[in-house]
Amino acid sequence: MGTDGHAFLEKWHRIVRERDRAVVREILAEDVLMGAPPHWRKLEGREWVGKLLGVIMDTIEDFTYHREWVQGGELALEFTGRVGKHGLQGIDLISLNDEGKIQRLDVMIRPLNTLAELANIVGQKMMS
Amino acid sequence: MGTDGHAFLEKWHRIVRERDRAVVREILAEDVLMGAPPHWRKLEGREWVGKLLGVIMDTIEDFTYHREWVQGGELALEFTGRVGKHGLQGIDLISLNDEGKIQRLDVMIRPLNTLAELANIVGQKMMS
Repeated sequence: MGTDGHAFLEKWHRIVRERDRAVVREILAEDVLMGAPPHWRKLEGREWVGKLLGVIMDTIEDFTYHREWVQGGELALEFTGRVGKHGLQGIDLISLNDEGKIQRLDVMIRPLNTLAELANIVGQKMMS
Repeated sequence: MGTDGHAFLEKWHRIVRERDRAVVREILAEDVLMGAPPHWRKLEGREWVGKLLGVIMDTIEDFTYHREWVQGGELALEFTGRVGKHGLQGIDLISLNDEGKIQRLDVMIRPLNTLAELANIVGQKMMS
């Protein structure tokens, strides 16, 4: 992998900081695969994954990144935030393709009750 | 941090492979803090964390590590496994102390239904 995760990371942080849903799509591969926290089955394609990321960014408050691991085009990004009164800790596992776009993204969150609450709110927003 | 995560990793893999619950305690700091997947409140101390790790190792089947990120004494280890028929993907976020023992361990798992099932089984085993 010649892909540089650090260049990607700069773009990613700007998008998350500015909650820029329009630009999210530009950093996703067209056939991106996302493993969302609540579901086993992967979400596929820029359209759906872009929408879901936007909704998640709008739903988690006080979203803050902490430890970051970068090995070539493979990244692990720890974050914290809250849903209403409930705190959460999570991780983004990201694989970049040769163009530096997200090919695969898996997101895991703890604890169980906050994850369930997040899944409920996000699920409703995705339908609307 | 002068701690070498790679030396730790070798030990960790052996313990997980051999499901060696006796040795688990030896790689935990006495005042280790663990963020378990279901609960927000951290579990504290070698006694409890060692017991919980043992129970989790006994409960998750086909436990396999995949991508691993190591930066000094900070590690992120991706794994998959299953609980009964249900697949899971998870991550161990590990901070080592200066002695190369686990000072802090946070574990996140997806998807929601497998996490709930795991929490239920592990909870019952921890009480017994």
